[in-house]
Amino acid sequence: MTAIDRPTHVDTIIVNSSQLLTMAESGGVPGGAVAVKDGIVIETGRTEDLLRIYPGCPEIIDAGNQLVMPGFVDCHTHLVFAGERSGEMEMRLRGASYLEILKSGGGIHSTVRATRAASADELFDAGMERLDRMARNGTTTVEIKSGYGLDEETELKMLEVVRKLSADHTLDVAATYLGAHTIPSETDRNEYVRWLAGSSLETFSGYAEFFDVFCEEGAFSLEETEFLLEAAAQAGFKLKVHAGQFNDLGAARLAASMGAVSADHLENISDDDLDLMAKAGTVAVLLPGVPFFLQSSIYPNARRFIERGIPVALATDFNPGSCPSYSMQMMIALGVFFCGLTAAEALKAATLDAAKAIDRESETGSLEPGKKADIIILDVKSPGELPYYFGTNLVTKTMKGGILL
Amino acid sequence: MTAIDRPTHVDTIIVNSSQLLTMAESGGVPGGAVAVKDGIVIETGRTEDLLRIYPGCPEIIDAGNQLVMPGFVDCHTHLVFAGERSGEMEMRLRGASYLEILKSGGGIHSTVRATRAASADELFDAGMERLDRMARNGTTTVEIKSGYGLDEETELKMLEVVRKLSADHTLDVAATYLGAHTIPSETDRNEYVRWLAGSSLETFSGYAEFFDVFCEEGAFSLEETEFLLEAAAQAGFKLKVHAGQFNDLGAARLAASMGAVSADHLENISDDDLDLMAKAGTVAVLLPGVPFFLQSSIYPNARRFIERGIPVALATDFNPGSCPSYSMQMMIALGVFFCGLTAAEALKAATLDAAKAIDRESETGSLEPGKKADIIILDVKSPGELPYYFGTNLVTKTMKGGILL
Repeated sequence: MTAIDRPTHVDTIIVNSSQLLTMAESGGVPGGAVAVKDGIVIETGRTEDLLRIYPGCPEIIDAGNQLVMPGFVDCHTHLVFAGERSGEMEMRLRGASYLEILKSGGGIHSTVRATRAASADELFDAGMERLDRMARNGTTTVEIKSGYGLDEETELKMLEVVRKLSADHTLDVAATYLGAHTIPSETDRNEYVRWLAGSSLETFSGYAEFFDVFCEEGAFSLEETEFLLEAAAQAGFKLKVHAGQFNDLGAARLAASMGAVSADHLENISDDDLDLMAKAGTVAVLLPGVPFFLQSSIYPNARRFIERGIPVALATDFNPGSCPSYSMQMMIALGVFFCGLTAAEALKAATLDAAKAIDRESETGSLEPGKKADIIILDVKSPGELPYYFGTNLVTKTMKGGILL
Repeated sequence: MTAIDRPTHVDTIIVNSSQLLTMAESGGVPGGAVAVKDGIVIETGRTEDLLRIYPGCPEIIDAGNQLVMPGFVDCHTHLVFAGERSGEMEMRLRGASYLEILKSGGGIHSTVRATRAASADELFDAGMERLDRMARNGTTTVEIKSGYGLDEETELKMLEVVRKLSADHTLDVAATYLGAHTIPSETDRNEYVRWLAGSSLETFSGYAEFFDVFCEEGAFSLEETEFLLEAAAQAGFKLKVHAGQFNDLGAARLAASMGAVSADHLENISDDDLDLMAKAGTVAVLLPGVPFFLQSSIYPNARRFIERGIPVALATDFNPGSCPSYSMQMMIALGVFFCGLTAAEALKAATLDAAKAIDRESETGSLEPGKKADIIILDVKSPGELPYYFGTNLVTKTMKGGILL
């Protein structure tokens, strides 16, 4: 049992779990309970102990022998955009080539066009609905990237929408500036990179905590990525990198050497780069919904990371082109089925290590005294049943900062 | 617009869909509506027309620009059993061999042991919960097979539980006798086959509408399957066959030649057998959750069936060993991503053609006058968005026989 300065009373005790997974310790506490006051976790322990310590607690939530654990942290999303692309998905599945899809108005540039054309209110309303859907699926903290503007006006519009979502939605939101998502089709490459590394950083430094670069063939080279990350670090941003999704350009090594918080995707990465990530403590963010949605057989191999002690996080990558799934539960199933994670590892990857990937581990991702009461109850008995009963929403209750949603 | 003897009033009109998919016609009716009386679909058409025809209708359900379609028909499940096997799943994923899993008490025989040991009440309670979960995910009719008893006492217990589920649960249930699931480990093979084709048929003829055989190496040979199906047909059962899941033993051809209602699985099947199925009108039931859950790359190719005009149905195969998913929405996503179905075809496969696979197309599977008002509303605008937003539950309302669940 753990406690911070034990108060005389608490607001809420969640009791009678099948297991309480705090993520602070390995394994679950059978029949475990958690006491909450002012939106903060006060204490975890056995149901009978917490009921004895805090008699007369006004709200007792009976978990009914279901699993209780921290809410999911979705640490990599592109949640703000206009224009869904399910038609493009169907074209691709019927064998349309990349060029045919581009010609028919598909691809990332179609999202850029739609996002530029959309009003801030439209983007905000769609963002609120998407966050609601994520909350219903057990997510309590969401990272959101810009990057469908690719010009000052629209990147600003996106980041203002992210700021408003953060202020207005119950979920916590972390903002990432991803002007370096791709080169806009109408702009000179060098000019765009200079803008990204120059005045754009001043414009957006108050809006985003993280700076991210898509380092990939067709997007930004390793040299450009290094140039951009250095400028962003100078400007006070924490760093993230899209690394090794399709080709190993060395971006994971660069992320490690520059002290990036995370390197994301990582389907294609060398052992040497892994060793450097381990040394630097870079979090590996795996996004298995992308190969699934694109019917690729190349998933990131989580065992290579875990063997080296690299923290592994899971995220949806929620975006209209390569993974439009709201569900961290689905990512857990894919992580277990195709990335080599055990169920217990996958749950930690979806909570505590995902919080590390957005530098939020001091406030969420585990049920420890002093952290936010971000708690979910799921209609399963044990971690293994989460991937087992795949493809649906097993969450029966979501609590965010002590408030039941 | 279609109508049966138009009544003076109706009980309920569901209005303002993004599209109404009746499944009776191809394509959706934008803004379509459906009128319901006494649990039966009376008429479908445009919202403004139905509101004009039936003024003063006491219940108007606003679909809020969401998709309205028939409830899902899950036409192949093994829903009644005791003992979940998520531990075995984790062993398998960590590389345990089939023999190691058997030695540790896993495999189908572990489910048989647990089901024999469970009381009818325990099986019933678990069955009710599972049907509730399916209903929440939009399923309104479920086929359930016996086959974890493999002795008279337990097969009877299972079929009595199925009968009680059918009587007590809001969902409709179709019962299938699957004593021919595998050979029980303690029994002489020939003796078991004789019992199956003999006295067992009399015992169970009042309990099940369908008789099913698992024709596969390690289960029943083609000759045994033929012998069993002939006896079952004589005894008045309609026929189903598990065919070509791992090996092509010719069971699909046999199913076609014997007038079986469906042949199920069909990963491995010859063109000749397909032609015979087309001629006979045998429904092809595809179960893509199984290769997904077993991480097999061999999915059934729906295009081979559709090209020949064979009705294609989707089902979960819900069972503890090879696919514990409650979600027809997940099967639709897998059918689109890995079996070559278009989204529109997948929705038909999950409704009207699934109803055909259990001989229920006269009462459910489409929104046509005279059929049951089995209707779901989903938080999407178009069929393509169902697989697109994969991995979660998009159903916002389920109506069964005119009653909102």
